[in-house]
Amino acid sequence: MHSDRCYTLTASCPDRVGIIARVSGFIAEHGGWILESSYHADPGIDGQSGRYFMRIEVKADSLPFPLAEFSARFAVIAADMQMDWKLSDSALKKRVVVLVSRQEHCLYDLMARWQSGELAIDIPCVISNHETLRGFVEWHGIPFRHLASEDKGAMNAKIGEIFDEVGADTMVLARYMQILSPALCAAHPGRIINIHHSFLPSFVGAKPYHQAYQRGVKLIGATCHYVTADLDQGPIIEQDVIRIDHSDSVDDMVRYGKDIEKAVLARGLRYHIEDRVLPHGNKTVVFR
Amino acid sequence: MHSDRCYTLTASCPDRVGIIARVSGFIAEHGGWILESSYHADPGIDGQSGRYFMRIEVKADSLPFPLAEFSARFAVIAADMQMDWKLSDSALKKRVVVLVSRQEHCLYDLMARWQSGELAIDIPCVISNHETLRGFVEWHGIPFRHLASEDKGAMNAKIGEIFDEVGADTMVLARYMQILSPALCAAHPGRIINIHHSFLPSFVGAKPYHQAYQRGVKLIGATCHYVTADLDQGPIIEQDVIRIDHSDSVDDMVRYGKDIEKAVLARGLRYHIEDRVLPHGNKTVVFR
Amino acid sequence: MHSDRCYTLTASCPDRVGIIARVSGFIAEHGGWILESSYHADPGIDGQSGRYFMRIEVKADSLPFPLAEFSARFAVIAADMQMDWKLSDSALKKRVVVLVSRQEHCLYDLMARWQSGELAIDIPCVISNHETLRGFVEWHGIPFRHLASEDKGAMNAKIGEIFDEVGADTMVLARYMQILSPALCAAHPGRIINIHHSFLPSFVGAKPYHQAYQRGVKLIGATCHYVTADLDQGPIIEQDVIRIDHSDSVDDMVRYGKDIEKAVLARGLRYHIEDRVLPHGNKTVVFR
Amino acid sequence: MHSDRCYTLTASCPDRVGIIARVSGFIAEHGGWILESSYHADPGIDGQSGRYFMRIEVKADSLPFPLAEFSARFAVIAADMQMDWKLSDSALKKRVVVLVSRQEHCLYDLMARWQSGELAIDIPCVISNHETLRGFVEWHGIPFRHLASEDKGAMNAKIGEIFDEVGADTMVLARYMQILSPALCAAHPGRIINIHHSFLPSFVGAKPYHQAYQRGVKLIGATCHYVTADLDQGPIIEQDVIRIDHSDSVDDMVRYGKDIEKAVLARGLRYHIEDRVLPHGNKTVVFR
Repeated sequence: MHSDRCYTLTASCPDRVGIIARVSGFIAEHGGWILESSYHADPGIDGQSGRYFMRIEVKADSLPFPLAEFSARFAVIAADMQMDWKLSDSALKKRVVVLVSRQEHCLYDLMARWQSGELAIDIPCVISNHETLRGFVEWHGIPFRHLASEDKGAMNAKIGEIFDEVGADTMVLARYMQILSPALCAAHPGRIINIHHSFLPSFVGAKPYHQAYQRGVKLIGATCHYVTADLDQGPIIEQDVIRIDHSDSVDDMVRYGKDIEKAVLARGLRYHIEDRVLPHGNKTVVFR
Repeated sequence: MHSDRCYTLTASCPDRVGIIARVSGFIAEHGGWILESSYHADPGIDGQSGRYFMRIEVKADSLPFPLAEFSARFAVIAADMQMDWKLSDSALKKRVVVLVSRQEHCLYDLMARWQSGELAIDIPCVISNHETLRGFVEWHGIPFRHLASEDKGAMNAKIGEIFDEVGADTMVLARYMQILSPALCAAHPGRIINIHHSFLPSFVGAKPYHQAYQRGVKLIGATCHYVTADLDQGPIIEQDVIRIDHSDSVDDMVRYGKDIEKAVLARGLRYHIEDRVLPHGNKTVVFR
Repeated sequence: MHSDRCYTLTASCPDRVGIIARVSGFIAEHGGWILESSYHADPGIDGQSGRYFMRIEVKADSLPFPLAEFSARFAVIAADMQMDWKLSDSALKKRVVVLVSRQEHCLYDLMARWQSGELAIDIPCVISNHETLRGFVEWHGIPFRHLASEDKGAMNAKIGEIFDEVGADTMVLARYMQILSPALCAAHPGRIINIHHSFLPSFVGAKPYHQAYQRGVKLIGATCHYVTADLDQGPIIEQDVIRIDHSDSVDDMVRYGKDIEKAVLARGLRYHIEDRVLPHGNKTVVFR
Repeated sequence: MHSDRCYTLTASCPDRVGIIARVSGFIAEHGGWILESSYHADPGIDGQSGRYFMRIEVKADSLPFPLAEFSARFAVIAADMQMDWKLSDSALKKRVVVLVSRQEHCLYDLMARWQSGELAIDIPCVISNHETLRGFVEWHGIPFRHLASEDKGAMNAKIGEIFDEVGADTMVLARYMQILSPALCAAHPGRIINIHHSFLPSFVGAKPYHQAYQRGVKLIGATCHYVTADLDQGPIIEQDVIRIDHSDSVDDMVRYGKDIEKAVLARGLRYHIEDRVLPHGNKTVVFR
């Protein structure tokens, strides 16, 4: 993480000889100073369909032109190499809409990180199906939108509207506890982040701590993933676990679990907003 | 952790035959229902000065008398066995004064736990040498006391006064960043809890993340300990670490470190308020 | 873990007032010195069917009678309290038959622990469906039994025979890679220990690392469990995980996984031979 | 880790614009297929003395010339950029001399990894100041050299002679328990790897587990580092920790510690032999 303003290029393309040379050559040619760069070659299952992934941070003021021209010029190379690519500017903060229910642990955690500047995002609003956390959110000067959850269809439509209206680019389900409609999920691929309170793929769906208690596992975990229309099946961004033992009740697990949930969500969200997560089918490449 | 009201007995005494029998016999005789119990025999260095430690939670309403009588009757056994002991009532919440400086991560974390009832404490006030966090504290309905830090002697005296005045039994330094006077430390042994941002005994004192960066360690940590007059030398309650690598700057370490600090402080504080920590010279027995 | 010879009592019974008092009273009455003791009250799902678990190590020479008489006298109390119980003598090492296939990592690890005395067991023989590890086993002075795996029925029968013939009490599947017959499993409940190379209940069955790679998880794990007739569904004794990332191939996972497998198996086996594992339905109480 | 034969280039140089472009351009120009590459820019303390580190694996048969010519051609670029650099061929296994004392855990662990091919090294001999492990080593077909430790000077001289005689490039102290002479250390910078049984910089020197027990820490660790003339002060390659508690004696710590020691040594050694460790003053850059 650098304090300098930088442009971050993320790209993937079919693997071949000379990708780094071409891209880094283009940047060097214009005097671009690379602050950080990561590369990954995925061999593919058959060893033939290899795919190449990269993430490069260039110091903004080392380039003789603005982002738009960088983008326009790079597009030529990208087209030539059949790249999926994206260029972002650290000066433009990501706009993140946070959805919560009644539990406060993830929200408090995100707000502390936002407040201290650790998480360089704007939060145009917090949406909830309960009034519980309104005061806390509004005290921070952030609009709070309460949506009644009786009519699921209307609620999902409304969430989509608000998302567009506030110009958000990311939605975070911070223990939102409601399932989003397939349509809403499909409309924002790779932009909706959920924290699930189990170490997926174990304990999909409702009451994962009860499931974990029933099975007698010795560690419990949490998973931060992109939401897709398939419940708890989206690409995993980050996971972690914590040790428990026979003396821990479901309530104890819930309590321990909260610490993992908020840590994993915070890490996953940071990777996302720093453009460190590249989708790869139903998996992710995460350049930490 | 039980939701039932319970009396918690913690005790240590010279090791000998029959300690558990005597104590559990007394409890059973009066119909006491033991919810949880832990025992530890420390052999001593020479194998002769062995010491025995125990913690027993008894369901309050299983006993035919109130805490005072339980205490009076147990005192006879305790005297006979040369016990250091304590009896506490889960219905009487610990009163915890929190000291902060300008950093918010530990405070937000503690407040979320207090707010949700996870941490069963009362917070009579928050003390700070800065005004920065006043609004956040007061929004939660908790008095905020600002103490100017120019005159260290006066400030320490004032902290001691406030502690007595609000009837607190525990003081938490939640990244307070000031060194308490030896007198204040000595007046409250086993009652002042600090979170130090290194894995002690490495990197005592100021700027531990800079020290860690300089040495090139591959993990950084945090330590929750009781404060004594010797800086960062008090009995350790809890510790944890997180992996870093060569790409992490001091700022990155600070950021990662915060997550460890708040988790370790929260665990250590919970052990303390649930009477799970028994002092043993400059070490602790922690019955998790 | 104590170097003194000790008798270890493990027991479980319906929860009620006075269990510890009764048991510890009996031990104290005869001058028994308790080296270590652990207790656990499981509330049961309905809060009524509570069950109590305990493990007590008594110094052998503190008692005025041998194990047989201890056992006979305790049987009266045990019957009275409807206990499932067991009494073992640390001077009688557990006899552990190890089953291996071709992979050496778990076997080397167990042999180093056995060789150094860390694992206080006797290994009457190693059984394998391959000749690969014969030399290594025999060099350690341990008989090696090769069983051809063509006829599964005969092989399972033979394993059972050898187990009885050598007077073993525990069977360890150290990456044996063959499924035992339901009959063999049923004949030795709580005595056959397997190491499965995933964090159960994720990735049951064959090729768990391939499954983990496919799903894109960020941690992989291993599970040490008692074998039952249901594949990978038996009571879990111990688990652990290790972090991986997108750059790790299936081969890398296999390599990382080995380290977790051997550590988890070794810990689980030690808990078992020190009588620290008490069955509880399809779960375990592990008094570490 | 790739199964293809590859050339691995590691290099560091003063940071400037165009380093990746220059190096990757050279490789691409000759059709070199990059299997894996990692880069790190260290900003330096003053933000001016920045240094750049890189590690690039090129598929050997993608290049039209052998290693020697690759090396000769690259030398021009390297000189131009004031690089410290090294080029190695995965087909030439590192030759690792292992020094042991009487403890077997690290040796068994290394031998299992060597035996299975996980650790792609040759072990020309094992050196020890005790006869204890001769049989085990020789059974594996590896020469065992016993050196009497009475005359430290002579022993150190002999170790250096053997190292040269067998054409080794790395020396591993696998719990060797003897301090090497400053002259021997100085003669092989970045080539002698030690495993120290504490989480450095805590508990330098003798009996670290006793020191840890005395201080009452809640985690113990191990450190794999390059040996320099300053005891336990060399550049750290890898570290890890494991949780302990008040019930663990020094003997328990020793036992737990062994698991961390062998895991950390094995990881550190693998990073070293795969040329993943680049020295950086008294620190290391480790491209995992």
